[in-house]
Amino acid sequence: MDAVVTYQSVRTHNQRHDYPCVTALREAPPMLSTMQDVPLLVSRILRHGSTVHAASRITTWTGEGEPRRQTFGETGERAAQLAHALRDELGVVEDDRVATLMWNNAEHVEAYFAIPSMGSVLHTLNLRLPSDQLVWIVGHAADRVILVDGSLLPLLAPLLPRLETVEHVVVVGAGDTSVLEGCRPAVHDYESLLRGRPTVYDWPELDERRAAAMCYTSGTTGDPKGVLFSHRSMYLHSMQVNMAQSMGLTDADTTLPVVPMFHVNAWGLPHATFMTGVNMLLPDRFLQPGPLAEMIDAERPTHAAAVPTIWQGLLAELAEKPRDISCLRSVTIGGSACPPAMMRAFEEEHGVRVCHAWGMTETSPLGSFAHPPAGLSPEEEWPYRISQGRFPASVEARLAAPDGTFAPWDGESPGELEVRGPWIAAAYYGGATEEPLKPEDKFSPDGWLRTGDVGVITPDGYLTLTDRAKDVIKSGGEWISSVELENALMAHEAVAEAAVVAVPDEKWGERPLATVVLKEDAGDVGYDELRAFLAERIARWQVPERWTIIPAVPKTSVGKFDKKVLRGQYAAGELDVTRL
Amino acid sequence: MDAVVTYQSVRTHNQRHDYPCVTALREAPPMLSTMQDVPLLVSRILRHGSTVHAASRITTWTGEGEPRRQTFGETGERAAQLAHALRDELGVVEDDRVATLMWNNAEHVEAYFAIPSMGSVLHTLNLRLPSDQLVWIVGHAADRVILVDGSLLPLLAPLLPRLETVEHVVVVGAGDTSVLEGCRPAVHDYESLLRGRPTVYDWPELDERRAAAMCYTSGTTGDPKGVLFSHRSMYLHSMQVNMAQSMGLTDADTTLPVVPMFHVNAWGLPHATFMTGVNMLLPDRFLQPGPLAEMIDAERPTHAAAVPTIWQGLLAELAEKPRDISCLRSVTIGGSACPPAMMRAFEEEHGVRVCHAWGMTETSPLGSFAHPPAGLSPEEEWPYRISQGRFPASVEARLAAPDGTFAPWDGESPGELEVRGPWIAAAYYGGATEEPLKPEDKFSPDGWLRTGDVGVITPDGYLTLTDRAKDVIKSGGEWISSVELENALMAHEAVAEAAVVAVPDEKWGERPLATVVLKEDAGDVGYDELRAFLAERIARWQVPERWTIIPAVPKTSVGKFDKKVLRGQYAAGELDVTRL
Repeated sequence: MDAVVTYQSVRTHNQRHDYPCVTALREAPPMLSTMQDVPLLVSRILRHGSTVHAASRITTWTGEGEPRRQTFGETGERAAQLAHALRDELGVVEDDRVATLMWNNAEHVEAYFAIPSMGSVLHTLNLRLPSDQLVWIVGHAADRVILVDGSLLPLLAPLLPRLETVEHVVVVGAGDTSVLEGCRPAVHDYESLLRGRPTVYDWPELDERRAAAMCYTSGTTGDPKGVLFSHRSMYLHSMQVNMAQSMGLTDADTTLPVVPMFHVNAWGLPHATFMTGVNMLLPDRFLQPGPLAEMIDAERPTHAAAVPTIWQGLLAELAEKPRDISCLRSVTIGGSACPPAMMRAFEEEHGVRVCHAWGMTETSPLGSFAHPPAGLSPEEEWPYRISQGRFPASVEARLAAPDGTFAPWDGESPGELEVRGPWIAAAYYGGATEEPLKPEDKFSPDGWLRTGDVGVITPDGYLTLTDRAKDVIKSGGEWISSVELENALMAHEAVAEAAVVAVPDEKWGERPLATVVLKEDAGDVGYDELRAFLAERIARWQVPERWTIIPAVPKTSVGKFDKKVLRGQYAAGELDVTRL
Repeated sequence: MDAVVTYQSVRTHNQRHDYPCVTALREAPPMLSTMQDVPLLVSRILRHGSTVHAASRITTWTGEGEPRRQTFGETGERAAQLAHALRDELGVVEDDRVATLMWNNAEHVEAYFAIPSMGSVLHTLNLRLPSDQLVWIVGHAADRVILVDGSLLPLLAPLLPRLETVEHVVVVGAGDTSVLEGCRPAVHDYESLLRGRPTVYDWPELDERRAAAMCYTSGTTGDPKGVLFSHRSMYLHSMQVNMAQSMGLTDADTTLPVVPMFHVNAWGLPHATFMTGVNMLLPDRFLQPGPLAEMIDAERPTHAAAVPTIWQGLLAELAEKPRDISCLRSVTIGGSACPPAMMRAFEEEHGVRVCHAWGMTETSPLGSFAHPPAGLSPEEEWPYRISQGRFPASVEARLAAPDGTFAPWDGESPGELEVRGPWIAAAYYGGATEEPLKPEDKFSPDGWLRTGDVGVITPDGYLTLTDRAKDVIKSGGEWISSVELENALMAHEAVAEAAVVAVPDEKWGERPLATVVLKEDAGDVGYDELRAFLAERIARWQVPERWTIIPAVPKTSVGKFDKKVLRGQYAAGELDVTRL
């Protein structure tokens, strides 16, 4: 609608048959509501959590001895002290980036709230990144201050000479500070810095679209990319986390965020907990299966969140040394697809319900959540539960099909998932003096995020991801799923592993190349047999013409097929390819 | 903080001891996030509900025979048709007010989504108001169109000659349209208007602060006041309703909003349901205890929402003719304080948990929700459950004390409740050509809503309301609760009823006047005895000096003490007051 009518004309023209004329009158301002114009700020979550839910608790695991315990009320007071220290002692002003190199602990929560609430930007550093990347990221963000866990000083100290923007290092907890001797930045002790400062702070009323926190993604190619979360996006995301259809947490819960606080804000849990008074159990650096089983057994959390690898390790640990984890009413798993066998094992052996979720740094990260529809039997629920799940109302989704249209939600037509919403990235941080970055392969011209994931969506909105977009074979305007071909191949009894990659083809643009690792006892299985085997299982036009048997599929550092290497080897003529 | 540093200076000044100088540089724009700037719109909720939750159902009770059933998908299509009809056939443009005079039914839900989504303003008319007020409200809102249930034509028809702004009447469902013969506005049939129109609509991308819906409150004094809800306020409120700490609804639920859709948007339930696919059971005009019991027994809702009177009636109905309502896992009660005995009866006799909530039109209405803290025994929970509950993070609260300060949250110090948040009103609609209204007694100078309710808040954030502010006695800078005095008086065995009102006092500003109705068999109880009885129970300075025995306490139409009448009688010297 381009038409707006002035308020006067509404009032005085009872008969308005001259409607087209009214269209021309675009002078009246739009009719605004009479609601309060109150910004959605991190400081509001902090103020709420530390007053209404002052008695809720943060418990930090210490490995041995008693865990450290503090209330939300105390956390609010310490967050105020931290903000005073940063402002008055270290000269941190609005928009300054303050980095953390920390595990999941109470002090990290204090930083989570103090830094955005005072108008500065919390920059969580991923301590697992290679040091060159860490140095690049700190420089790109121009961090002025780094808060670092004492236990992580050995990691930080060698990098300090190269961290040119950093003026202050604040050491949290005990650690060998001798490694910092002679370093350029000023060194402070966290507790000494806070001591004696006022326990209230007059948090500024900010524009809710302002940057509140940042997190860099470590792409496999190119420089890391920084996502700048806003107060608004974090506030809305926290509400979503607490919605019954997502994690549904209340102050009767205790959540255990195993997912690190340097990894997309621990999936938003620290903010979400303060919004509803959910108690937190924080593992600090004790992320091994043994201590995790200990702390669950001892502290009885009702919810936990982690990537599949962690849970797999916990299962093995419990098989070896049983402990009671039945206190967990639900466990959220994300980060990568979760093996159904593991979900079943948790449920059948430990009475713990596992919920699958999908997201990425650019989606804050809550993108979808795999609650099955109501009224199904446990067996009927499985296909829904192992999918990536349904989108919340604030995440709009579409599938960009290979032909430039959008694929229907029919559960069959694949497309690259694109999403839009108030907690989805529109760009990456360009650096202090540069415009935001909007690489074409990550953002559509109309502003949607291109996730790089290919999948299908059912008519009732369940997403199933199959491939990374870069691993899909674009053959004559249609897409071939490499994962589907690989699964079909690996179903053959002689095949140990199989990786399928796209290679250039004059006629079709791209075609699949099948790279196969045979089992030791495979005998004389040939390409013809494998091709015939495939032809019975998938559409004929998808069957590869190009085949090669290799000794092993190259893998990335986290054990995934490294298809970039295979494509490189093919391009360099290093593979012995048979064309059928 | 007033300081902002330009991005350049952050990058190039590693050592910044000149921090105060930087403060002067307020030139750089604040650092915005890289999140998408996606508005929170009613159309987004509609699009989500009618696609991702297309299979969720709206069931409308019909009294006899089969209920009418339609899916969210169909509702989305019909909402699009309605928007086309309003725009193309009736000439409705953005910001036009379109009124509804309707019960809770599927068509009302269609209007709920179509009208705001197309950029117009939904105006729900309270069919229980006196006709003069209805006429005034329609004129003040300048409604151009009224959608009316066929069953409500006898109510609307006599008013039409006085509804000067109304150009179109759209009749929904069957009804005696003969009463409309000869009326000035054009008359349309809802179904004929929709038939054949496109089932998709290109909903405009609006400013989220724009007016989406309006609702007038019927104050006891002065003209009704219109609250203009925004897209933003309704979107955020819907998220809150679905948070586990509020109603916690999911697509496994079916909710029964008995609270009328003309009463603060049925507490936000129609929007909240589309946000998460919650099925709806709508009672249409069948709000009597009998049909309510029928529909609960037959359709098995898991949640319901209504005012206490309705539930009291249902209890009596079930006592007389038992039916199974155990399908209700929770029932939300609000609108006025809920008798604890009723809550117990629901729980003990029917296995239905009742949750108390507080709100008002100006708070959208979700203001607080009475979930008890975790870990208490059922008996320990009661004081929390009969309170008004705790505030969500988006509702900030303070108690304005009689001395001009804010009262502490100590569970004892009373104050007038003031609230602030993104779904709280900042003003009332002033009319088409006027500024918004901000009466001093409703809005504080710094923009908080003055609720007119007096109460206390405990250290853990539980609100208990005791008096309406206008019924509190402001005596020498302290407040005396009229309700507390009344309860103390009514505990005397000779007292049938007692009402306490403030009357002017030269020395103290105001003092309490005790008006007492004695029981028939009260004997010769005198003022001295009553005063002595009070003095043992309340602080001496609160004991009234002025007493009068009256035959009955005047009551309002809903049975509450009408203290306005008592104050008037006192001022006019019509009461026989004894001064002790």
